[in-house]
Amino acid sequence: MAPSVQPSSSPLRTSEGDEKYANVKWEELGFALTPTDHMYVAKCRQGESFSQGKIVPYGDISISPCSPILNYGQGLFEGLKAYRTEDDRIRIFRPDQNALRMQTGADRLCMTPPSVELFVEAVKQTVAANKKWVPPPGKGALYVRPLLIGSGAILGVAPAPEYTFLIYASPVGDYHKVSTGLNLKVDHKYHRAHSGGTGGVKSCTNYAPVVKSMVEAKSSGFSDVLFLDAATGRNIEEVSTCNIFIVKGNIVSTPPTSGTILPGVTRKSMIELARDIGYQVQERDVSVEELLEAEEVFCTGTAVVVKAVETVTFHDKKVKYRTGEAALSTKVHSMLTSIQIGLVEDTKGWMVEIDRCQG
Amino acid sequence: MAPSVQPSSSPLRTSEGDEKYANVKWEELGFALTPTDHMYVAKCRQGESFSQGKIVPYGDISISPCSPILNYGQGLFEGLKAYRTEDDRIRIFRPDQNALRMQTGADRLCMTPPSVELFVEAVKQTVAANKKWVPPPGKGALYVRPLLIGSGAILGVAPAPEYTFLIYASPVGDYHKVSTGLNLKVDHKYHRAHSGGTGGVKSCTNYAPVVKSMVEAKSSGFSDVLFLDAATGRNIEEVSTCNIFIVKGNIVSTPPTSGTILPGVTRKSMIELARDIGYQVQERDVSVEELLEAEEVFCTGTAVVVKAVETVTFHDKKVKYRTGEAALSTKVHSMLTSIQIGLVEDTKGWMVEIDRCQG
Repeated sequence: MAPSVQPSSSPLRTSEGDEKYANVKWEELGFALTPTDHMYVAKCRQGESFSQGKIVPYGDISISPCSPILNYGQGLFEGLKAYRTEDDRIRIFRPDQNALRMQTGADRLCMTPPSVELFVEAVKQTVAANKKWVPPPGKGALYVRPLLIGSGAILGVAPAPEYTFLIYASPVGDYHKVSTGLNLKVDHKYHRAHSGGTGGVKSCTNYAPVVKSMVEAKSSGFSDVLFLDAATGRNIEEVSTCNIFIVKGNIVSTPPTSGTILPGVTRKSMIELARDIGYQVQERDVSVEELLEAEEVFCTGTAVVVKAVETVTFHDKKVKYRTGEAALSTKVHSMLTSIQIGLVEDTKGWMVEIDRCQG
Repeated sequence: MAPSVQPSSSPLRTSEGDEKYANVKWEELGFALTPTDHMYVAKCRQGESFSQGKIVPYGDISISPCSPILNYGQGLFEGLKAYRTEDDRIRIFRPDQNALRMQTGADRLCMTPPSVELFVEAVKQTVAANKKWVPPPGKGALYVRPLLIGSGAILGVAPAPEYTFLIYASPVGDYHKVSTGLNLKVDHKYHRAHSGGTGGVKSCTNYAPVVKSMVEAKSSGFSDVLFLDAATGRNIEEVSTCNIFIVKGNIVSTPPTSGTILPGVTRKSMIELARDIGYQVQERDVSVEELLEAEEVFCTGTAVVVKAVETVTFHDKKVKYRTGEAALSTKVHSMLTSIQIGLVEDTKGWMVEIDRCQG
């Protein structure tokens, strides 16, 4: 069903012993899947609690055709990254934040979530089991993908009788293969989320619906799509897979997390870093007009990290923004990645080191 | 992972030879899963066309943890029913309509759909392979569930490289175990769909998000939830898994299928039947005020067929409607089911008979 994920089928893989690194062409990494050795799987009946799962070989899973994840979209995912430092420690960026967000999402979708402690421990075990897939310092990161899915069989629309918490991982490089910045198209046809929906949690149901807009925009040469709010169509909300910020003078503005915006972990970190260096950060409605008058625009997300926006196109109007050395996004990208890869001390307690004895 | 779907685990099943009927307590059927013998599976690479699939034993499927159905909700489902007539023919209700709707949905979610011909043929094969699970006349129907899912592995948010078209089936009785009519709660907190979203197609992403509202309503004694439009919060849209109609005098009104309402096959059939017997049917915005002033309210859907609404509760206001013999819903329910189970001639060409030689 998915031949590319079979351990034996990837030309990038090695199965030889316990070398420090897997046989990966690190310089060529993008955001494609490079299957790793192991994944984590735990199961739980509805209403019970997850107990410790298992590290198993990475590969296809067996699931009922009548499960709510296949029929009704009862699933949440998370994305986080593990980095290798120059002195060969492996550290994970803020896994507790993803654990907390999964709990919020599970409440919204009536699922049973793992505890924060179990989530973080499971992420650490997954990274440890795949540590030779963590790229060399500065060459990328091990992207870690926790899933919580309604896996038990039930015919009608209702909470699943069983949940599966699964974590797989893949080494990744840059999400967008553009040098200067993204070229975004403002979508005035499709919307991503609505009040009283699931836009504020990392539900799988928020993503397939935006693919058509992304595909249309990419076929016209854009990097990605910026969605407007469904209620008024006047305010910016989110790019398909990342949050958005605008900069004018000393003020950085970003849409508020009031239910239709994903509360990004990188977004939250960015707000803190921008304030640290003297910027005023406002979480508030941002109109398209303000966007078009901004001096700088950038996106944040686990996959993109911090990425400058070079242009925004709204109907027939195309606006160019500041990028490069003078841009705030360049400065905060450097601040954030320096913490992540260990070039500066992590005074914020954001990095969680995996135990060297693991894996 | 889903032990209840293993063929050997259901106390209702029989594995003995080719009896006319499976060993099912037909009188006790509700809308729970009763696993049957076989399912249909076909696969297709992105951009290619589905060719004929296979009937295989019903059971768990194997799928990549990195598939878009598990991570991003890239999935569509359909629901249709097969009925047994008194003279032992087995007929399926309007499968071409479900096939066409799956094509519309596949376009919206950037998926590769089966052709209408392949879809209908696959449904017929699935029913034929499970024909002893089609209940006796008047005791229910074989509910048939086609799924189209993004099954190939891909890490980023994008169309899947491979699609799986799968059909399973379960004998079912009444969806709602209420005699007189449904007791609906109007939801003023959650919304089901928004303009520019996926509410007009049978995307899996429309369903997990409504579970919380359903669960909350059921815990307060309601049968189900009626959602209002996300744009204004003033107009009625849809019950979590069925369409809604109101009746006042000779006029039957139902919300229009303009992108946030599922274009139900039973809804469409109902409109035709009501017009046949002299009612004026209007597809238009219907406000909550109109709903509360209606003489009769009813729901339509493949699972519920046609079901009277006994009460609607909006905030603290509870309104009671006409049900029973005098109700239009009773009359059209009788008209529709008479066609389905073969008590009257199908002059509309709605019923598709499976070939007796199959299965």
